[in-house]
Amino acid sequence: MKQKKARGQLIVLSGPSGVGKSTVISELLSERSDIYFSVSFTTRAPRVGEADGVNYHFVTREQFEEMIARNDLLEYAEYVHNYYGTSLRLIQEKLEQGIDVLLDIEVQGAAKVKTRCPEAVLIFIVPPSFEELSRRLHGRATDLEEVIQGRLTKAREEYQEIPNYDYLVVNDKVSEAAAEIIAILTAEDCRTNNRLHLVEGI
Amino acid sequence: MKQKKARGQLIVLSGPSGVGKSTVISELLSERSDIYFSVSFTTRAPRVGEADGVNYHFVTREQFEEMIARNDLLEYAEYVHNYYGTSLRLIQEKLEQGIDVLLDIEVQGAAKVKTRCPEAVLIFIVPPSFEELSRRLHGRATDLEEVIQGRLTKAREEYQEIPNYDYLVVNDKVSEAAAEIIAILTAEDCRTNNRLHLVEGI
Repeated sequence: MKQKKARGQLIVLSGPSGVGKSTVISELLSERSDIYFSVSFTTRAPRVGEADGVNYHFVTREQFEEMIARNDLLEYAEYVHNYYGTSLRLIQEKLEQGIDVLLDIEVQGAAKVKTRCPEAVLIFIVPPSFEELSRRLHGRATDLEEVIQGRLTKAREEYQEIPNYDYLVVNDKVSEAAAEIIAILTAEDCRTNNRLHLVEGI
Repeated sequence: MKQKKARGQLIVLSGPSGVGKSTVISELLSERSDIYFSVSFTTRAPRVGEADGVNYHFVTREQFEEMIARNDLLEYAEYVHNYYGTSLRLIQEKLEQGIDVLLDIEVQGAAKVKTRCPEAVLIFIVPPSFEELSRRLHGRATDLEEVIQGRLTKAREEYQEIPNYDYLVVNDKVSEAAAEIIAILTAEDCRTNNRLHLVEGI
């Protein structure tokens, strides 16, 4: 049985395109079904197969700008004329209920989260090597070579932000990467600051 | 397979008498046989059943004072006219070989270790409650009531040092306490600072 928690942990996962992050997250959530996986809000149109509330919360530009005005976004960014962001209110509710919240966001958003919530746990997932990342990106076989090269260049830029992350997990085998993340979350629960309420007389 | 490590982790375990620390350590070492459990040096005489190099390294007062003079002790203390201490040289050797080192020491020694090795990971083990600690101490049935009361008083003093520890583990079930410590060690291995050598181009 898990120890009673005063407050949930906010967990941020980042990693380059092609590292296999969504597979690791699926494995993680299948082991730790108590974690709330935060779905981002976006103004872009749903793609074929995407469902509202599953892949994204799809909202209008007006709705998104209202969220900005209400300061209801933990972080947001605009890419190619579309907004993407994370609702602060939803996350706070879960954390206050003692539920761990997982965010899958890129390096700029992660930096904003750390500034606003210094207690957030930032985990960066890397492939075993750049060679392997290139192999994985080519293995998808859906992208043009120039798109792949662009992703590899972006990965090198993202790597420069790794020192801002608390933990670094190498995704060689998915099950091992997920097990390391689960160990990180267990360890964070064991931090003295998160457990002092369990001890009498301090 | 474990990731190659640049350097071993120094792990300090403390906890009140009666908490079941040695049982937790046995369980931990049976799961993680790669950990080097540091045996303390002492000038006190071996008790029946104690073996040199297993329970303690038994040395003479002269030998111990030479270790002090050579600055070869990570921490030491004198109790009831006997010295107890931890060899720095032995530990450094193991850490440099990438081997994790576990120390079982009390709160004053732990504080000294943290001052000298700020990267040391300090874990405090508590019982589920003081009532349960009292029950466990009485369950031993070998100690006089006044000895037990002395241990409970000392436990309350030791509890005041808990905020200096990085992690707090509740020993309700031994297997769960050991699993939490193993998770803590895995997470510490995943700390970005301990893994940057695995990533190219940073």
